[in-house]
Amino acid sequence: MKKFQHLLEPRSVAVVGVSDDAVRPGSQAVRALIKNGYAGTIYPVNPKYPEFEGLKCYAAVADIPTAIDLVVIGVPAQGVLPVLEQCAAKKVPYVVVLSGGFRESGPEGIEREDRMMEIARAAGIRIIGPNCLGFANIHSNVYAAFGSITRAPKLQKGSVSLVTQSGGFGYSIALACAEAGIGFRHVIATGNETDVDTVELIDALIDDEATSCIVAYIEGSRDGRRLLEVGRRALAAGKPVLLWKGGVTEQGARAAASHTASMTGTYDFYKALFKQTGIIEIQELHETVDYLKALLPGKYPAGRGAAVMGVSGGSAIVFADAGERVGVNMCELAPATQERLVKVVPNIGAVHNPIDLTAGYFSPANQEKLAEAVRAVLADPGADSLCVNLATTGKAGSLAAAEVLGRVAKETDRPIVVFSSAPASEIGDALAHFAQAGIPVLPSPSRAARALGVLAGYREMRAKLGAAAAPLDTGSVELTNELKQLAAQGALSETQSKSILSRAGVPVSKDVVVQSVDGSVFERMSAPLVVKIVSRDIPHKTEIGGVKIGIRTRAALEQAIAEVLDNAKARAPHAAIEGVMVSEMVRGGFELIAGVVNDEVFGPVVVVGAGGIYTEILRDTSCRIAPFGESTAREMLDELNCRRILDGVRGGPALDVAAAANSLAALSQFAWAGRDVVQEVDVNPIFVLPQGAVAVDALIILRDAPSAAAH
Amino acid sequence: MKKFQHLLEPRSVAVVGVSDDAVRPGSQAVRALIKNGYAGTIYPVNPKYPEFEGLKCYAAVADIPTAIDLVVIGVPAQGVLPVLEQCAAKKVPYVVVLSGGFRESGPEGIEREDRMMEIARAAGIRIIGPNCLGFANIHSNVYAAFGSITRAPKLQKGSVSLVTQSGGFGYSIALACAEAGIGFRHVIATGNETDVDTVELIDALIDDEATSCIVAYIEGSRDGRRLLEVGRRALAAGKPVLLWKGGVTEQGARAAASHTASMTGTYDFYKALFKQTGIIEIQELHETVDYLKALLPGKYPAGRGAAVMGVSGGSAIVFADAGERVGVNMCELAPATQERLVKVVPNIGAVHNPIDLTAGYFSPANQEKLAEAVRAVLADPGADSLCVNLATTGKAGSLAAAEVLGRVAKETDRPIVVFSSAPASEIGDALAHFAQAGIPVLPSPSRAARALGVLAGYREMRAKLGAAAAPLDTGSVELTNELKQLAAQGALSETQSKSILSRAGVPVSKDVVVQSVDGSVFERMSAPLVVKIVSRDIPHKTEIGGVKIGIRTRAALEQAIAEVLDNAKARAPHAAIEGVMVSEMVRGGFELIAGVVNDEVFGPVVVVGAGGIYTEILRDTSCRIAPFGESTAREMLDELNCRRILDGVRGGPALDVAAAANSLAALSQFAWAGRDVVQEVDVNPIFVLPQGAVAVDALIILRDAPSAAAH
Repeated sequence: MKKFQHLLEPRSVAVVGVSDDAVRPGSQAVRALIKNGYAGTIYPVNPKYPEFEGLKCYAAVADIPTAIDLVVIGVPAQGVLPVLEQCAAKKVPYVVVLSGGFRESGPEGIEREDRMMEIARAAGIRIIGPNCLGFANIHSNVYAAFGSITRAPKLQKGSVSLVTQSGGFGYSIALACAEAGIGFRHVIATGNETDVDTVELIDALIDDEATSCIVAYIEGSRDGRRLLEVGRRALAAGKPVLLWKGGVTEQGARAAASHTASMTGTYDFYKALFKQTGIIEIQELHETVDYLKALLPGKYPAGRGAAVMGVSGGSAIVFADAGERVGVNMCELAPATQERLVKVVPNIGAVHNPIDLTAGYFSPANQEKLAEAVRAVLADPGADSLCVNLATTGKAGSLAAAEVLGRVAKETDRPIVVFSSAPASEIGDALAHFAQAGIPVLPSPSRAARALGVLAGYREMRAKLGAAAAPLDTGSVELTNELKQLAAQGALSETQSKSILSRAGVPVSKDVVVQSVDGSVFERMSAPLVVKIVSRDIPHKTEIGGVKIGIRTRAALEQAIAEVLDNAKARAPHAAIEGVMVSEMVRGGFELIAGVVNDEVFGPVVVVGAGGIYTEILRDTSCRIAPFGESTAREMLDELNCRRILDGVRGGPALDVAAAANSLAALSQFAWAGRDVVQEVDVNPIFVLPQGAVAVDALIILRDAPSAAAH
Repeated sequence: MKKFQHLLEPRSVAVVGVSDDAVRPGSQAVRALIKNGYAGTIYPVNPKYPEFEGLKCYAAVADIPTAIDLVVIGVPAQGVLPVLEQCAAKKVPYVVVLSGGFRESGPEGIEREDRMMEIARAAGIRIIGPNCLGFANIHSNVYAAFGSITRAPKLQKGSVSLVTQSGGFGYSIALACAEAGIGFRHVIATGNETDVDTVELIDALIDDEATSCIVAYIEGSRDGRRLLEVGRRALAAGKPVLLWKGGVTEQGARAAASHTASMTGTYDFYKALFKQTGIIEIQELHETVDYLKALLPGKYPAGRGAAVMGVSGGSAIVFADAGERVGVNMCELAPATQERLVKVVPNIGAVHNPIDLTAGYFSPANQEKLAEAVRAVLADPGADSLCVNLATTGKAGSLAAAEVLGRVAKETDRPIVVFSSAPASEIGDALAHFAQAGIPVLPSPSRAARALGVLAGYREMRAKLGAAAAPLDTGSVELTNELKQLAAQGALSETQSKSILSRAGVPVSKDVVVQSVDGSVFERMSAPLVVKIVSRDIPHKTEIGGVKIGIRTRAALEQAIAEVLDNAKARAPHAAIEGVMVSEMVRGGFELIAGVVNDEVFGPVVVVGAGGIYTEILRDTSCRIAPFGESTAREMLDELNCRRILDGVRGGPALDVAAAANSLAALSQFAWAGRDVVQEVDVNPIFVLPQGAVAVDALIILRDAPSAAAH
């Protein structure tokens, strides 16, 4: 770990704000450093004390004779800035501000926080906090922290690092993991994240050799795009990131606003990000524990087939129920596997999946048989993973099983998980054995199934990484330049928008605007045609007779143009008429809507949904962060409830999903290339046809255009 | 508890199949009875032993000198029937058959199980099992059981009773609860349920004074209707039933089939049953624990508003997120409440909901302030419940909070729940205090929110009970008799079906079948009309020109009738023509489909869904077990994704939801009244109009009718 090396592994720590009052954050930090055996130098700072806890106490940071890697500030808010100025003078690289009284506490605090950042930026100081619990490096006994992080029970060493905006709640994650025997590397509570934020820390932790899994709790992020990049980097590095996003519902976001006023971002965009990075979403403490247990051994199933064996039929059913919901499938066992099993499973049991070993099977006497049964299953081509249901099996049986499974696990790359509901007080020996063998023990068969689902999903994301990494054609420079010129002239028209999208690779229907009764365009277009009056002053064109459809001859076209012009004159005499649009009529297929939102936090995001009447009724949409390729676009379409319409309904032809996906991918690449100028794109509708897809109406709204002002 | 009194509280127990082999089920049962201090008489039975475990051992049940309440049979399968015959001779009322080797093991076992029931029925013996772990009455130390039920840890006494088809998995539920400090009354593992089943036991447990909550795990039920009745009786009695249905997915059901071959029933029908009874569905061990913790104190919130206070902003956000998903709403606190809070909450905290008490607030010094804060919130009209987030608060702070909350909880009917993530080893004193005060402590804020959601939902179901109990008009006897007569004549036509449904209260569109070109019906109908050829031999009527729509005059009607007859003659010359149907054309509104399935397990169930193209695409349906009234029918409609279409879309009028609901209720009452004859009803479509609803096509399929044979 290079970045933040001397923050998280400081050779010396000064703590400002120690006192006889044991509850003072500074006092807690110094005591924790001493109690936990921190090997570097500790400098307590308080002008009132000659020494603190047996250490020489300094009057000020400025008085400390040597260089300091890290200063921990725990003085009341109004005292923080003078200390920070001393740190700046002393060229301290890292500061943790435990103190509250900043942005979260009103106008005065906001001003203080701004001033703090000015000092820090000028001096090149990186700050954790303010308003945070601080951090602990469990491997090196660094406790630049107070509160729960410094209290019993002490976390054990391990390879999980935790970064959390919320100290109080975030440390609950650490405690829940600790209770389940999971050890930690770094635990970092970031508070207001005025400078260093969760995303930057995750980024740094990817490069920390001692960290194998990263858990984060965030309420909001300033830069969703950066999280996307960091998530992908973590995936490439094979370090799973488990992320809990707080404030995902309306009332959750309201509660978050009253908590730290951090930007919570749109949950839909976070969900898209999870799918595009392999970041594993967590929403429960026990989920975090389960998934970490499953991930830490580092064994991933090659597919989604699972075999289940055990002494409880009910457990297998519960596994199967939960498995189906997360795509973990009860595999068929090959005849050869069943032949091997028949020899070691009692004949009142079952040798198909789920394998019923029959009550009492787990016992010292049956160890060889069990080993053969497990080996047989793990040799089966369909059994990508194995769940062994010990269920209520007691002390001796559990230990017998643990010994066998521990042995066999060494011979295989396939993950084995165990369900046991026996109390730890009864089967402690077996649990220790399982832990040593890297076999996760889950407290219900459904949780075992979900943990296997997470492993399978993570492996799939890793496999997809190669495909996603292919360079995307992110639009031409010329197109972006043209957009910038247009932006200077004001809002884009629909015609301009369609022309630009067409050149960006989104197929559009052909439109020609004529100024008079001119049927010559008929020769250049495919009938049937539609004519429509073009005027910003006529919002409801059909009502004034401004639209004619189903035009099949040149003569009819001329008549239609004449009629809509006449109608407009007669029924909207004051409207400024820009012309008459002649368009090819799109028939058949299925209407989708597509669009781009250039989000403040995530940048351009592409949304697709069921169109027409479905749009309003079904709210059936999916989104991905731009840019992306066709395979991601197909995933978006696959998520829609209306997806099966595209395969053809009531005997109709299948529609061109590939064309729709290509259009979305092109749209995403256009949006990414034009992110500095494009605020929003609405493509509504885009028809998916039996062959091809075509956008009929489209509007690009530019960032600086007057029409974008409303946003 | 009267029913099964001497099964669950036997004065004497004979155990057949004891031996020196300690793993024999019978041996385990006798040892468990002795070890746990069973106060009745124990009769071990085995001809080979003069005594067993210091008790006189009998050669056979027949040799036991006194009457016996309960015989536990643990001999191998082939020995069970002779023992049962002795029980019959001795007029033993209850037998538990622990032995496997029955239905679950193939043809021979099925025959054995049938013979077993013959003996039992003839003698009036009630049987638990076979192929089961047996049961334990924890209050009276009755252990008619083996395996996990008899092993350490011993369950503590409490008021939860557990009934489970699966012994191995079901006892996992007991162990998970025990670990969380929940005590038990009865634990019954029913195995094959050849005689006594889970539903009958739940029914009996409702009348057990020592049982306050019932937990059940079932894979299938022979009689869903009985479960409905029992569920409603439990609701009326105020005894929550928590039910885990195993085998709810396709692969779960397959796994269940290989387990006990019990009928799993349709999960959708079970879900309807849960909604109609207030039975609380559980799908996880920890859910069971959480909900029991919340239910056992017997305090229910009067509404869905919740206040949250604590020392961790993140915890409040997580509570709010989870709460929104289960309808637990962060309440607004009244100004008066906030004024009280301002006096006892530090000014860097927050006195709106969520209330931020600020770090370190929970402490012995703050007890009076905390008491005032809690009292202020509980006096607020919007705070139907309170969640106190201790989060990582340590030993002293947790105990201080527990003392205050325990005191204040006595003064209020509103439920208080606590979130604590501190390890039990640290805060044991506080946990004991909370337990004594009946304050549930949940391990995450989200689980606290969901537990409050369960409490709120249960109270609402209890309130609805009164409404649902109103007697329903379940159809006339004449209509049912008429159906029976029609059934004798064969399948019903659409016209007959519509006529019957109309009389049952389902509005239908008017149809008249004419045999010739007869325009006189025009006077009796509202134009526009539709004509349609009637012939069983012409499946696709439109294709042969057999349908004409939009008829507005008598002359046009006569012409249309003539045309469809001509077209049929010309283009389907061999078809038998039954006439021409003249119908009123229904326009506007929204198409639903409705139907009845007369299920083997649940009886008649009404299904409603989005109609037209939506039917196939969206699979948007909801169902309820018949009969039911309008309010239940409205709930069904409210569950549909397309529900908001009924409120009017794109400026269209709102549709008549009440009429649609009335139609469904009438359909349900018809289906219930006619359950002996009606196999299926398809109403497709039924239009919901701005005023009224009308079924356009309908078909009643009778149970004995030839057309029902395909089902």
